[in-house]
Amino acid sequence: MFESAEIGHKIDREEYKKRLPALREALLDAQYDMLQSRKFPVIVLIGGVNGGGKGETANILNEWFDPRHINTFAFGPATSEESQRPPMWRFWQSLPPQGEIGILFGSWYNDPITDKSHGKIKKNALDKAIEDIVRLERMLTDEGTLLIKLWFHLSKDQQKTRIKSLQKDPATRWRITDQDMAELKLYDKIKNVSGHVIRETSTAFAPWVIVEGYDANYRNLTAGQVILEAIRNRLDNKPRPPSALAAPFMPPLDQLRIVDTLNLDQSLGKEEYSLQLEKTQGKLNQLTRHPAFRKISVVIVFEGVDAAGKGGSIRRITQALDARSYNVVPIAAPTEEERQHPYLWRFWRHLPRRGRITIFDRSWYGRVLVERVEGLCADADWQRAYAEINDFEEQIADHKTLVVKFWLQISPEEQLARFEAREKTSFKRFKITEEDWRNRSKWDAYQDAVCDMIDRTSTGQSPWTLIEANDKYFARIKILKTLCTRLEAALEDQEKAEGNKK
Amino acid sequence: MFESAEIGHKIDREEYKKRLPALREALLDAQYDMLQSRKFPVIVLIGGVNGGGKGETANILNEWFDPRHINTFAFGPATSEESQRPPMWRFWQSLPPQGEIGILFGSWYNDPITDKSHGKIKKNALDKAIEDIVRLERMLTDEGTLLIKLWFHLSKDQQKTRIKSLQKDPATRWRITDQDMAELKLYDKIKNVSGHVIRETSTAFAPWVIVEGYDANYRNLTAGQVILEAIRNRLDNKPRPPSALAAPFMPPLDQLRIVDTLNLDQSLGKEEYSLQLEKTQGKLNQLTRHPAFRKISVVIVFEGVDAAGKGGSIRRITQALDARSYNVVPIAAPTEEERQHPYLWRFWRHLPRRGRITIFDRSWYGRVLVERVEGLCADADWQRAYAEINDFEEQIADHKTLVVKFWLQISPEEQLARFEAREKTSFKRFKITEEDWRNRSKWDAYQDAVCDMIDRTSTGQSPWTLIEANDKYFARIKILKTLCTRLEAALEDQEKAEGNKK
Repeated sequence: MFESAEIGHKIDREEYKKRLPALREALLDAQYDMLQSRKFPVIVLIGGVNGGGKGETANILNEWFDPRHINTFAFGPATSEESQRPPMWRFWQSLPPQGEIGILFGSWYNDPITDKSHGKIKKNALDKAIEDIVRLERMLTDEGTLLIKLWFHLSKDQQKTRIKSLQKDPATRWRITDQDMAELKLYDKIKNVSGHVIRETSTAFAPWVIVEGYDANYRNLTAGQVILEAIRNRLDNKPRPPSALAAPFMPPLDQLRIVDTLNLDQSLGKEEYSLQLEKTQGKLNQLTRHPAFRKISVVIVFEGVDAAGKGGSIRRITQALDARSYNVVPIAAPTEEERQHPYLWRFWRHLPRRGRITIFDRSWYGRVLVERVEGLCADADWQRAYAEINDFEEQIADHKTLVVKFWLQISPEEQLARFEAREKTSFKRFKITEEDWRNRSKWDAYQDAVCDMIDRTSTGQSPWTLIEANDKYFARIKILKTLCTRLEAALEDQEKAEGNKK
Repeated sequence: MFESAEIGHKIDREEYKKRLPALREALLDAQYDMLQSRKFPVIVLIGGVNGGGKGETANILNEWFDPRHINTFAFGPATSEESQRPPMWRFWQSLPPQGEIGILFGSWYNDPITDKSHGKIKKNALDKAIEDIVRLERMLTDEGTLLIKLWFHLSKDQQKTRIKSLQKDPATRWRITDQDMAELKLYDKIKNVSGHVIRETSTAFAPWVIVEGYDANYRNLTAGQVILEAIRNRLDNKPRPPSALAAPFMPPLDQLRIVDTLNLDQSLGKEEYSLQLEKTQGKLNQLTRHPAFRKISVVIVFEGVDAAGKGGSIRRITQALDARSYNVVPIAAPTEEERQHPYLWRFWRHLPRRGRITIFDRSWYGRVLVERVEGLCADADWQRAYAEINDFEEQIADHKTLVVKFWLQISPEEQLARFEAREKTSFKRFKITEEDWRNRSKWDAYQDAVCDMIDRTSTGQSPWTLIEANDKYFARIKILKTLCTRLEAALEDQEKAEGNKK
């Protein structure tokens, strides 16, 4: 969920000063155009971790826009007046009229996330709150509101550093409350809960935009740019929901993407590889003979660009397995029959029963990768696919299915080298087609799609594991080790669940 | 929820035979057109109470359509093959391809409703199941599926009669299982649970159509007509969601509406009225002095055609109240400011605090009455309003607000008499305008809208009370008595809740 917001996004002073004037002018223009047409209100909803810059962003937006037509509402605990009305009452009082901008900060997201993180409410109550929020937001957007939701994230280390530096300075020490310190301790908990809430409330009509909050320049420019694009799109009468916002799929302003942060130079010597291969394959085989294995199902997903090494990695897994216990499903373009059913239909058919493994060589993620980049489906279709895929994986995970997902990352140079090698090796020549060369030309678009995929579908239950795959040996061993670790944990959970039953 | 499906809808043999040939021909035509274009699949999902005619309808649809392109799937308890896969797996296997029709019967609604009615799952688990269903259905319709949901309802007496008559006949006795008898005992429970589920899953993209199931002719023709209109609309490229189906807002085929079943001749003599008025007003006043009254809020809604007697009834209530404890909010066309906010905004503002009563003279129901009939908002807007209103009322009811809703029904003749009387009485002349006369000409359209409103927004928590209002005395006393009963129950609940806390 927060993968791309923990990689140190940054925009330096120089660059910031260069970009700011144009952005501010464009924002003011957009605001005046909104006021003139008075067709829709804008709500900028600000959430995020402590120290992520929520307050600072609200302040700077007030500075950038004409302050006569922007209102900021901060919500703390309910007042006596407010607590005598239904919980949503106070938020209704602060909805901006058409043409105006309202900044909500400490919004309807505050209480559910805080209460769940502090263990005051259970999962069910949280789910009820999420459902209420989705309905409210659907109604607001149906009624014409442009709802922009920004989440400011910090990694655990960043939050620690931020709080310590505020504490050191006597001029800022007062800003750190006991609650801040308590929340730092709860960091992992809060991150999990917010991740869940953000995923479930990232709807087509009101998606979240996650912004790394550490560097103020990056944070401010990104917030401004997102708001600008969203307002502009609406003013230009671009279609309303489901593709209301182009903004959430905007590449980071500093061009830093999570796939670019991987160290692809990692490698393994041949001898070490052989040793590790034997060890991990042996371990994997052993795990599939565990009595609890007969009570669970396993789904393994391989995604990666052409020639990333998916096939070779899959073979290293299946070598360790009893042939009756697994099934490899290669996913190509859908057949005529498959095209006549909903997108996920062809994957549902292959779900493994208990005690079996299905390995998908490419998968349902094609929707948000190749279909997105090649324009094989409408924007609205791949944009709603993230939520659909999360639902799908949650359903199968709830049914005791372990879902392990690998993204194999190689550099464009490595891909080229492998393509050329394949052309030379006659028996591998069938593996390289015209299409492969064409795909290469869209490298950047694919990489953007991969980052969105990772951010939007890496869940606590079914996270993505990113594999540095320039070196095949290194990649295969990392894959086998990850698989063993995940499987071992799943078997333990299953044993525990059985123990509880007894 | 089921108000209009308990009034004895019926179509006689003669009429049935006259209408059937044209319907069957049109259905076959529609099916062949679907097959030719192969653009979308159709799912007819059949739910309802035992004895409501689910099986019979599936059979007759198979008879009416070309059986080569229609498939019926009945789902009982999961098989061993099925139970090894996620719960939705077996439904995925039965999705029809484009151009084909699938009839699902015993669908994804079965288990949640049955389990909750039998107390096997809690409210929270039911809500989770509902959410999963809504997501699945949204995905299916997003993917192009035309999803038609029919619910066959029987009143408690009808169900009893149906089962007894099957039992009497040795040829049909085998059809009554122990489970059927058990479900008859649980009738009220099942009705409540299904009502909740139907309301929450009656979405813009896949709304339920409730059909009274007692008379086979009425049931069959209605099912056929709904399916025909839904397919035709899609074939004619009418807009997809949110107004995918015109069918749910189709008036009943036998022209029998719930508002027409009221006995408007009921009346009260002047003496009896004075006596009862004093008694009920005294009771109401007493109830508002109850200690628990300070812990709850009360919202009273009055709706009715012009001259139905809303104002007079409201005065008979306020006469009994301390002037500081209530507020009457007359709702006219929205002001300029109100128009710049979401539709429900102006009502949220007037919600009473604890220990206070707000009486709305007309209300948020204007959206599905005057705005629908006069075309003041888009079809999609009033169609989604039912769910929004249910949400709104649920939110305030959850916050210890008692919601009491009155629909005042008079005959067109009575309205005319009152209009004429008003024109003669100079001090009442201001009350009658050109618009009143114009509204009268749309009497039938308004009555259709009223029936939909009652069916779709009468909930267990906030039911509509229909008032036979041709006689003002009778109407006022029924209103005061209803109010006292509801308020008394709410105060008792509040006392119990406090007792539990101690």
